[in-house]
Amino acid sequence: METVRAWPIHIPAPLLLAAGFVIIAGAQRDPLPSWNDGPSKHAIVSFVSDTVRSGATTFVAPADRIAVFDNDGTLWAEQPIYVQFQFALDRVKALAPQHPEWKTTPPFSAILAGDVNGMAATGEKGLAEIMTATLAGMTPDEFAGIVDQWLRTARHPRLKLPYTDLVYKPMLELLEYLRSNGFKTFIVSGGGAEFMRVFAERVYGIPPEQVIGSTIGTELQVRNGQPVLIRIPKVDFIDDKAAKPEEINKFIGRRPVFAFGNSDGDQQMLEWTATGSGHRFMGLVHHTDADREFAYDRASHVGTLDKAWDEATLRGWTVVDMKSEWNRIFK
Amino acid sequence: METVRAWPIHIPAPLLLAAGFVIIAGAQRDPLPSWNDGPSKHAIVSFVSDTVRSGATTFVAPADRIAVFDNDGTLWAEQPIYVQFQFALDRVKALAPQHPEWKTTPPFSAILAGDVNGMAATGEKGLAEIMTATLAGMTPDEFAGIVDQWLRTARHPRLKLPYTDLVYKPMLELLEYLRSNGFKTFIVSGGGAEFMRVFAERVYGIPPEQVIGSTIGTELQVRNGQPVLIRIPKVDFIDDKAAKPEEINKFIGRRPVFAFGNSDGDQQMLEWTATGSGHRFMGLVHHTDADREFAYDRASHVGTLDKAWDEATLRGWTVVDMKSEWNRIFK
Repeated sequence: METVRAWPIHIPAPLLLAAGFVIIAGAQRDPLPSWNDGPSKHAIVSFVSDTVRSGATTFVAPADRIAVFDNDGTLWAEQPIYVQFQFALDRVKALAPQHPEWKTTPPFSAILAGDVNGMAATGEKGLAEIMTATLAGMTPDEFAGIVDQWLRTARHPRLKLPYTDLVYKPMLELLEYLRSNGFKTFIVSGGGAEFMRVFAERVYGIPPEQVIGSTIGTELQVRNGQPVLIRIPKVDFIDDKAAKPEEINKFIGRRPVFAFGNSDGDQQMLEWTATGSGHRFMGLVHHTDADREFAYDRASHVGTLDKAWDEATLRGWTVVDMKSEWNRIFK
Repeated sequence: METVRAWPIHIPAPLLLAAGFVIIAGAQRDPLPSWNDGPSKHAIVSFVSDTVRSGATTFVAPADRIAVFDNDGTLWAEQPIYVQFQFALDRVKALAPQHPEWKTTPPFSAILAGDVNGMAATGEKGLAEIMTATLAGMTPDEFAGIVDQWLRTARHPRLKLPYTDLVYKPMLELLEYLRSNGFKTFIVSGGGAEFMRVFAERVYGIPPEQVIGSTIGTELQVRNGQPVLIRIPKVDFIDDKAAKPEEINKFIGRRPVFAFGNSDGDQQMLEWTATGSGHRFMGLVHHTDADREFAYDRASHVGTLDKAWDEATLRGWTVVDMKSEWNRIFK
């Protein structure tokens, strides 16, 4: 397949003259400069070109240009542990003085002692206890403030950068490229919706109402005569695997034509996208760059890429080889 | 207060020249021609003008211009019974030949016999049985097809028009007026999300992902090797009263600055909107026109307007007197 050199533009050369506001488009710059010429870039550009070409059998009406992205491992780094899990661990440490009983109560005792094996031994039950202890009992605004504060100060253990700097430049370009071609971009992630909403608009250009994720219960209460929402220690839903198409249906109400993930947790979302009618695109990020980021797939506990990879190979979905296809990793 | 005669425009007199596409704004036409000059129109126009005026203390950043609308009784007629309930009754009749047992099983037997009292006697349990019998056991696409077909043929019992013609022209103008001033418009209704999504984009200009409503469970299953979503007979949530702020938080992730309803079911949504910081607008439609539409409030079983009305009076929220303030009711 030949390399596409003319980049499609959603509206042909618009010239917008408004008060103090001039855009001159038509300059056909490469919208994906961080992507090397290669099969993934070619597949993306071909798909978008075909989608917006009026009259083509591959044309997709603007209303149906729904693109969904996983977050952890697809838009930002997820190793060595999910960012939100690191947040929860740091939060346990910050809250420990108010909870002396945690010193002797797993999983908190294991976290405070830095005992990774002890933490892991408490399994899903332990994880749920950590999550509810660190995510509930406050208003959504208070929670957002805590997350925002943490994001400003926390640094990745190996890469020594703020987590919001560890978003993938090639994916930021892809989001913008899709939007400039009339796509509406959504996050559909196993991460917490209200965790991601703190930074998604600023970092990805994706507003809160287009961020779908796991949620805990939130209850309207009245305090001092004022209605307040309080996050309660009850899992509402976990937006992973089969729940992803279910939540896409509930929140978006349309089947996407474009889906990008990186792990087996995204497999059902990609299958759901793939089995709609008309032109569609399914992609996976394969983490192959141990030097610049991380290299992991089938054997990894975080972001396992195994069955979804096999299916991608079988069906010809795009699998991005991070090492050879991305000339730049982080923003 | 004087009547505002200059209508605010979101971007000052933009001139858009694109291929075959010219918009000349600046013509300051009345954006709300179906609203008589009166307190409600004045309040709306003042609010929007104040909201978009750069530098004003009442300015609201574009990202925060979130406007939420109830549907039944706020955007379209809800008397003598909710449209979706009429759909369910018609659906029971259509499905009856496949369910001979319904002839002797309440509430179905009462519906088939046209026995309104018998139907009412089965209460919420009966209603739940009707809803699950008529709304579940199919894919979302199949359900949408059934609703679409019904909307094409069903007629309002008294007004003799298709239900989608019984949407309020003044509210259509208001939706458009808000959007042209940078607001994002959402429906937040007790009605079924997937019922409303069938017509909301075509009729209101509100895309599916901005329609929040009650939902039933939807489950990913595999049929003939293909993933399918199936609507299951289990209420997911009822988006009414206290659930409205909760669902706004879950789906939109921001507190609205503008909310419009018509009944006590909207009270918490209006309170939630009212108690945010900054400039905000709360409105209620009061159905006062027995000739052109319906007249009802405190004593009505459908769309009861009682406590929310008292609170609106107490707090100075806008209450639209349909009879005197709307010179045209339907689109």
